[in-house]
Amino acid sequence: MTGQPVATRIVLASRPSGKPVAANFRLERETVRDLAEGEVLLETLYLSLDPYMRGRMDDAKSYAKPVDIGGVMEGGTVARVSRSSNAAFKAGDIVLSHSGWQSHAISDGGDLRKLDPQIAPITTALGTLGMPGFTAYAGLRNIGKPKAGETLVVAAASGAVGSAVGQMAKIYGARVVGIAGGPEKCDYIRQALGFDVAIDHYASDFPAQLAAACPKGIDVYFENVGGHVWSAVFPLLNDFARIPVCGLIAHYNEASSVSSGHDRLPAVMRAILRKSLTIRGFIQREFAEQRPDFYQQAGAWISEGRLKYKEDVVDGLENAPEAFLGLLEGKNFGKLIVRVAP
Amino acid sequence: MTGQPVATRIVLASRPSGKPVAANFRLERETVRDLAEGEVLLETLYLSLDPYMRGRMDDAKSYAKPVDIGGVMEGGTVARVSRSSNAAFKAGDIVLSHSGWQSHAISDGGDLRKLDPQIAPITTALGTLGMPGFTAYAGLRNIGKPKAGETLVVAAASGAVGSAVGQMAKIYGARVVGIAGGPEKCDYIRQALGFDVAIDHYASDFPAQLAAACPKGIDVYFENVGGHVWSAVFPLLNDFARIPVCGLIAHYNEASSVSSGHDRLPAVMRAILRKSLTIRGFIQREFAEQRPDFYQQAGAWISEGRLKYKEDVVDGLENAPEAFLGLLEGKNFGKLIVRVAP
Repeated sequence: MTGQPVATRIVLASRPSGKPVAANFRLERETVRDLAEGEVLLETLYLSLDPYMRGRMDDAKSYAKPVDIGGVMEGGTVARVSRSSNAAFKAGDIVLSHSGWQSHAISDGGDLRKLDPQIAPITTALGTLGMPGFTAYAGLRNIGKPKAGETLVVAAASGAVGSAVGQMAKIYGARVVGIAGGPEKCDYIRQALGFDVAIDHYASDFPAQLAAACPKGIDVYFENVGGHVWSAVFPLLNDFARIPVCGLIAHYNEASSVSSGHDRLPAVMRAILRKSLTIRGFIQREFAEQRPDFYQQAGAWISEGRLKYKEDVVDGLENAPEAFLGLLEGKNFGKLIVRVAP
Repeated sequence: MTGQPVATRIVLASRPSGKPVAANFRLERETVRDLAEGEVLLETLYLSLDPYMRGRMDDAKSYAKPVDIGGVMEGGTVARVSRSSNAAFKAGDIVLSHSGWQSHAISDGGDLRKLDPQIAPITTALGTLGMPGFTAYAGLRNIGKPKAGETLVVAAASGAVGSAVGQMAKIYGARVVGIAGGPEKCDYIRQALGFDVAIDHYASDFPAQLAAACPKGIDVYFENVGGHVWSAVFPLLNDFARIPVCGLIAHYNEASSVSSGHDRLPAVMRAILRKSLTIRGFIQREFAEQRPDFYQQAGAWISEGRLKYKEDVVDGLENAPEAFLGLLEGKNFGKLIVRVAP
C-alpha cells in the first residue's frame, strides 16, 4: 500500500464585511484518510471560480447554505479518480464534481458525472458545457425567451455566463448588445463572438451609448451584474420586457440593510406595472430536467463553431483566493479556472 | 322624429399634481348628434369606477394612452341601446361598453358585448364577471399559480379584484390572508367570503400581525396596492414566491421622479435573486384569449355560491368624481359603481 497523499485545501477563515480580502481565506494541509467501501479518491485537476461563491461567504439566508467558518470553500471541479473502491469508477476516470477548493476529495460517487475528453475539452464542463452555460440556456429558455428581431442586453459579456447568453440569443435571432469592461473585452465580444454592439461600461457616457445602441428599446435584459448597468438599462425597457436575474455581482459586497440615495423602488414597481415587466430570479438547478437538452444542444453549437468560449486559467490552488478577488472586480478575461494539478 | 337627448358627461378639466381633487373634473352637457348608418345610441345605466383611472389622468407613458384634457373620463359601462341603425342591435338591448363617464354615447357596435340579464345581474359585468374579476382570474392562472396548501396574501381584499382573488385562491386550495381597511371590511372578508385570516392594515402592529398570520411565509402576493403593505409582505416572501402586479394604488398620487427614504431597490433585487422570486406586472387584456374560460368558470362559481361579491352603488353621474376620490382612499366597500340612469 502506498502512503496517503497530503491534501491542500482552502477554507473560509472568516466572513468578509463588504469586500472580501485575502485574510478571509486560509490554506491548510491534511493527510487524506483511507477509503471506505464504495468511495473514490479524487485528485482535482481544475477548479471553477464563479461569482456566486461570494454569496456562500456570508451567512445571510439564500438558496444555498453558507460555507461554515473553517469549512472548505465550495466549487465545481474537474477531477481524476486516483483510487476507487466503487465499482462504477476506475482509476484514471475523469469526472465532474463539486468538491471545492482542494487538491483531493473523497466521494461516494453519487455526485459525480463522468466526462469523455473525446467529446470536448474537459474544462468546458466548468464553463460553456457546465453550470455557467446552463445558466445562460435555462434563463433564456424559461424566462428571457428572446424572439427574432428583439433586442437583448447582457453585461459581463465576455464572462462565462454573458458570452453564452449573447451567442445563444444570436442563434435565436435576437439583436445582441453586450456590455463589458474595457476595449479588449469589447473587441472580443464583437469580433470573436459576433455580438451586434459592444459597449464599455467604464465609458463616461455609458448610459447614452447604451440608449443609442438600443433604438428600439430593450426586450430582454439578462441581469447578472446590477449596479450602474441596471440604472442605464431600466429606462430603455420595452413593454413586456423580461429580466432573468442570475447574479448581482455589483451588489455582493454591499451591506445588506441600507443603501444610499433616493428610493428607486417605487419607480421600478410603477414601471413593472405600466410596462408589464417580468423580473425573475433563478438558479439553474431549478431547471435541472432540461440539462440533457442543454448538453445536446450546446454540444452541437460548439462543434458547429456557433458557441465559442474563452478561458482564463490560473495555475496553482494557492492562487485561487487572489484570482477570485480579481473576478469580483472584473479582472478576469473569460471563464476563470484554476489548474490545481498538471 | 323625437327631439335629440341632451348628454351629460364628465371631462378631465386638468391633470392632478399628486392627489386628484374635484376641480380636476368638469361636468358638461351637449345635445347628442344624429346616428349615422351602422351606429347605435347608448344610454348609460351603470358606470364602473376603478383605481386604474387615476393613471389615465396623468400624461406619463403607460400601457394605455391618457385621457386628453377636455376629454370624457374613460370607464367601463353597462348601457341600454336606445336607438339603433345597426342590424346587430335593437332598442332595449343591454350591452357592456367602455363609453366612459357620460349619460349617452354613440357606438358603431364593434366594442359592445350583449348581456343577458337572465344569467347574472347586469352590474356583475363591471365587477366579478367583468374586468376586475378577469384581472383576478388571469393573474392567478398565469402568474400567481397558487397551489393547494400554499399561502396567498391579497390587499384591498374587500374590493372588486381582491375579493375575487381571495375566493378563487380558496377554490384552488390555498390558505388566504386578506388585508383590508377597518374592522367592518375585515369581518366581511372572513365571515362572508371565507378568507382564513383578515388583517386591518390600519393597525399599529400590522406588520407583526401579518407575520403571525403567515407562519409558513408567503407563496403568492397579489399586488394591487404597494406602499406599507408591500413593506410588510416583502420579508415574509418564500423561495419561489410569485407576485402578480396589477395595481399600486398607494403610489398613484406620488410624484414620479424621486421618493424619500433609503434606497430599497438593492435589497429587493437581492431577494429576487436569493429567493428566485417572480415579479410580473400585467393587465388583463394581455390574456384576452382566456376570457371565454373565465366567463364559464366564474359564472359557475357564482351560481354555486363559491364566488360572492358586494357592490357599493352611488346614485347619479354628477357624484362620480367624489366617489372616485373616495375610492383612491379606500372609502368604498365593495365594487364601486355609479347608477347613471334608473
